[in-house]
Amino acid sequence: MKKVAIIMGSDSDLPVIKPAFDILKKFGVEFEAHIYSAHRTPRAAESFAKNAAANGFGCLICAAGKAAHLAGVMAANTVLPVIGIPVKSSTMDGLDSLLSTVQMPKGIPVATVAIDGSANAALLAVQMLALREPELSAKLVKYKEDMEREILEKDSKINEQI
Amino acid sequence: MKKVAIIMGSDSDLPVIKPAFDILKKFGVEFEAHIYSAHRTPRAAESFAKNAAANGFGCLICAAGKAAHLAGVMAANTVLPVIGIPVKSSTMDGLDSLLSTVQMPKGIPVATVAIDGSANAALLAVQMLALREPELSAKLVKYKEDMEREILEKDSKINEQI
Amino acid sequence: MKKVAIIMGSDSDLPVIKPAFDILKKFGVEFEAHIYSAHRTPRAAESFAKNAAANGFGCLICAAGKAAHLAGVMAANTVLPVIGIPVKSSTMDGLDSLLSTVQMPKGIPVATVAIDGSANAALLAVQMLALREPELSAKLVKYKEDMEREILEKDSKINEQI
Amino acid sequence: MKKVAIIMGSDSDLPVIKPAFDILKKFGVEFEAHIYSAHRTPRAAESFAKNAAANGFGCLICAAGKAAHLAGVMAANTVLPVIGIPVKSSTMDGLDSLLSTVQMPKGIPVATVAIDGSANAALLAVQMLALREPELSAKLVKYKEDMEREILEKDSKINEQI
Amino acid sequence: MKKVAIIMGSDSDLPVIKPAFDILKKFGVEFEAHIYSAHRTPRAAESFAKNAAANGFGCLICAAGKAAHLAGVMAANTVLPVIGIPVKSSTMDGLDSLLSTVQMPKGIPVATVAIDGSANAALLAVQMLALREPELSAKLVKYKEDMEREILEKDSKINEQI
Amino acid sequence: MKKVAIIMGSDSDLPVIKPAFDILKKFGVEFEAHIYSAHRTPRAAESFAKNAAANGFGCLICAAGKAAHLAGVMAANTVLPVIGIPVKSSTMDGLDSLLSTVQMPKGIPVATVAIDGSANAALLAVQMLALREPELSAKLVKYKEDMEREILEKDSKINEQI
Amino acid sequence: MKKVAIIMGSDSDLPVIKPAFDILKKFGVEFEAHIYSAHRTPRAAESFAKNAAANGFGCLICAAGKAAHLAGVMAANTVLPVIGIPVKSSTMDGLDSLLSTVQMPKGIPVATVAIDGSANAALLAVQMLALREPELSAKLVKYKEDMEREILEKDSKINEQI
Amino acid sequence: MKKVAIIMGSDSDLPVIKPAFDILKKFGVEFEAHIYSAHRTPRAAESFAKNAAANGFGCLICAAGKAAHLAGVMAANTVLPVIGIPVKSSTMDGLDSLLSTVQMPKGIPVATVAIDGSANAALLAVQMLALREPELSAKLVKYKEDMEREILEKDSKINEQI
Repeated sequence: MKKVAIIMGSDSDLPVIKPAFDILKKFGVEFEAHIYSAHRTPRAAESFAKNAAANGFGCLICAAGKAAHLAGVMAANTVLPVIGIPVKSSTMDGLDSLLSTVQMPKGIPVATVAIDGSANAALLAVQMLALREPELSAKLVKYKEDMEREILEKDSKINEQI
Repeated sequence: MKKVAIIMGSDSDLPVIKPAFDILKKFGVEFEAHIYSAHRTPRAAESFAKNAAANGFGCLICAAGKAAHLAGVMAANTVLPVIGIPVKSSTMDGLDSLLSTVQMPKGIPVATVAIDGSANAALLAVQMLALREPELSAKLVKYKEDMEREILEKDSKINEQI
Repeated sequence: MKKVAIIMGSDSDLPVIKPAFDILKKFGVEFEAHIYSAHRTPRAAESFAKNAAANGFGCLICAAGKAAHLAGVMAANTVLPVIGIPVKSSTMDGLDSLLSTVQMPKGIPVATVAIDGSANAALLAVQMLALREPELSAKLVKYKEDMEREILEKDSKINEQI
Repeated sequence: MKKVAIIMGSDSDLPVIKPAFDILKKFGVEFEAHIYSAHRTPRAAESFAKNAAANGFGCLICAAGKAAHLAGVMAANTVLPVIGIPVKSSTMDGLDSLLSTVQMPKGIPVATVAIDGSANAALLAVQMLALREPELSAKLVKYKEDMEREILEKDSKINEQI
Repeated sequence: MKKVAIIMGSDSDLPVIKPAFDILKKFGVEFEAHIYSAHRTPRAAESFAKNAAANGFGCLICAAGKAAHLAGVMAANTVLPVIGIPVKSSTMDGLDSLLSTVQMPKGIPVATVAIDGSANAALLAVQMLALREPELSAKLVKYKEDMEREILEKDSKINEQI
Repeated sequence: MKKVAIIMGSDSDLPVIKPAFDILKKFGVEFEAHIYSAHRTPRAAESFAKNAAANGFGCLICAAGKAAHLAGVMAANTVLPVIGIPVKSSTMDGLDSLLSTVQMPKGIPVATVAIDGSANAALLAVQMLALREPELSAKLVKYKEDMEREILEKDSKINEQI
Repeated sequence: MKKVAIIMGSDSDLPVIKPAFDILKKFGVEFEAHIYSAHRTPRAAESFAKNAAANGFGCLICAAGKAAHLAGVMAANTVLPVIGIPVKSSTMDGLDSLLSTVQMPKGIPVATVAIDGSANAALLAVQMLALREPELSAKLVKYKEDMEREILEKDSKINEQI
Repeated sequence: MKKVAIIMGSDSDLPVIKPAFDILKKFGVEFEAHIYSAHRTPRAAESFAKNAAANGFGCLICAAGKAAHLAGVMAANTVLPVIGIPVKSSTMDGLDSLLSTVQMPKGIPVATVAIDGSANAALLAVQMLALREPELSAKLVKYKEDMEREILEKDSKINEQI
């Protein structure tokens, strides 16, 4: 049974999304990727969202750029938590994607991460899933400790470099 | 047969939309108003859009604020021209609404007017309808002439006022 | 008889505008291109706009950058619907072009599409023309179906790629 | 055992946060409120975050304005999901709060909702908790249905009002 | 013979423009006010600009808001220096007006002052006219000295007030 | 006797300023270039501004980036018209330079042109000088005619290119 | 001997600056206030800055709005640390003041605090002075402890209020 | 005994920070560099800040990007002056970093310099240290004189280059 679905608005978003795949693999969380567009494949997107809970998904990660409606449209069709990744496009430096994703009206939240922040989207998904699968919590603690150790190692050598 | 549908995301948008009603009445264009939300009533919104052409509408006007997805969602479900009015909300001074409405991806255009620009949305709808109902063109020409005359009358008195 | 006129403020805008030509050719809509500047060739721009309806055009598409006045100036001189494409220039990431095009005062609408969104400008023009030429509606429906199918094909292969 | 902690950076944020309390009460989710500042009470904030999982909390909601570091600092000290509410202050229209909350570096996500979007923060918390308490899912479905019905009732009366 | 023309896009701009009238009166510079709109009275605006030099004007001051094309359109039709005042409207805090006025393409400059900066627009006009009427230079020097003295008087009393 | 002074805040601004030199040479207007910084050479900058009128300059053109104070500081020390060119730097896309140049307080105007708009700064200087040297007006008229003709020639060939 | 000088660009800034006076009084730091404008009283501003070190000042606090050059101009004329307070004006929500104050070129720093952040400007001044007057450090530690205690007291009562 | 600590959020910030090292070396001010992250190594960051005064540091320079909390977190844990360098990241052109660093709430100031302005951060640190080590003042005066001379030399040759 898949646990996370990652939906992107276009296959051109793949390079931005790859870090999310890497995080989910690292944590051993099963996932499924899809290319659906809120505007160009509204039926497929809606249908996927409506059936996501019944299909065993725990949360959805949606990545889109410009007038980034994908996360909002998915959230309108499920009560699973929906995580939104605003993808920077060729204009407006990601501001349009961010505001279109985060400024949701009352009633339909989207858990928005940083522009192009796909690794954090995956980590947030793992944090959510850890609420029902406590063994993920221990992995998250270890991930943080590794991250801390890695930086402190860099810190210990920095004064030699300058 | 209705010619224009005006859909707003919330009844709190009514004061902003009123000038659109006034313009359509002035031009004798039949219209129908609706409150549908891309996020809170996705089924009703989608269903309306899908049947709009068959129901005789010539174009849709959609008004929404914040992560303003309404116009985009309607455009995804019809080939009628969709006009978007970005509505200013309590934060971000309308910039979020504008970018969410106008920055549509390739394939699904939204004809966006100014923030809170509902009168112009209605005029644009009349201009579109005039393509199949030429008598509206004459009314548009007269509307412009009246507008011009009104300003020139103000101009003729301005130097007395200062 | 030409149906759409595409006017750009500078020949340097040609690469941005090309997708509009491609869409119009695909839909079999006749068009004519022009280089007019609101500021540098005001007489030619105004004269073209004034005669556009009489010359059989159904709508105008205007592309300009920076203080992008072209669409507004054309709209001031015709009652045909005018579609504005804000063109990104070397500074301000397109925000100046967008605001100069979309924030029109009451009375003179410009149907604004996304920054550099020329394909959508052409699609919007086709949607408008379909109001008087119903055979275009069927083509628009097919265009949407093709677009949907193309994405769903990509979707069917995405999980193999990651 | 409390399930959600709501931490605000200042008691002046209370009116903005109140809708979150209302949602949690409506869903019967226990919660605890705190006033901690990332800058003015760093020890208390850090201590609370470190012990939150052990104390049985399922997620944290953090609300702060301006250089809004509260959610980020809490997230640095727990592996529970942290929801951030950017609070609009007297300058910059909430943009500073939004960017300070959402633009988190790789490794430490904050699930950001709209500026002043406290109701959605609470709904997102309920969606997360529903992963371990399935009865909340049914309540969320009902909440959505009520919301939909309420809007459609307004829709049914709108044409009489204009 | 009038020396300065002040053109505003709407009579609602009068309160913002009044300080310009006051400055010109103070310096004894004759002026004429007009209400012309680049979009709603294009012919009158263009005609005025084309004849402005022949009618003895030395420079034009143009005030407009939103997609503020007035100064640009006037500048397109005269070689007199054109001063632009971006007027703040109900949305976007004047940024749209500023960018629409200042971001002119190569060939047609607009001398832009601060948002709502009508007093400075008038002072700039006086500075320009002083190039052909040297007695205005002496008045400008005195104006600056008075301004300096007034501030220094306030400075001399400030420590008593706090 | 020099007529225009062009002052830049840094020699790295030279490529941006070059079009201004070209315009002034084309119009046969004598000029002098300087590198002065409002912050790093305040005395030289101030001294130049104070003596500019006595030294026969008709107007000053000042180019600077980031917290672009140069034009403002020069304007504080002369009653000659000061033209400001906001220079785009490596961050903020020119917005900081634009706002620092144009948003001058009451009493000290800076005639601001577009970001990196040095050609227009020079044309504006010529327009100002034409107030005391009428032969420049004729040159400006011709410049505009040439510009118009050049665009119309491009227009006449555009439909062959697409 | 005065230790801190607070210079504001206009007496209309007094209400924004008052919290700075309060902080300095609370810490027993002597100060002197001035109204000088970078643009309207350049000589007085420059003269004050040049003599500030010799007159025993330890640092300068400068508050100004719009194209806020005051702090930069003072910093150009002293090697004392200069603290800048960007003051929000009637347009642009303080963004112009912030960028004009903080984006200083290499060589002349301004220590910028938040928009309208005068209390923090004064605290920063006290922190700087504490480098030569260690007894201020103890007062700063106590100030922080009081602030922490005050918030924790509010925290202890918050759950009763909701 | 070290006098200045330079803390960066990531070793990828090193190229941006290098000019700060160069300035401190030029002025003979001892310093120590660290890589600490407010989010990924909160304990190390906090511990360093708490002991910084006792360890003889006079001020801290903190560089971070995106939701740049590092300077604020350090300032929360010391009464030494903290200088913040907002580092431009791959999106938002540095605006997120700037607002996250500068918009600190009352009580905890951060002395913010320009985006990527590390040389100025170091100069500001030297200015602060000069309050207790007067010989640094003389060096600062000489630094300014050299900078002035260097620009005036460039100025003396500029007219030959154009």
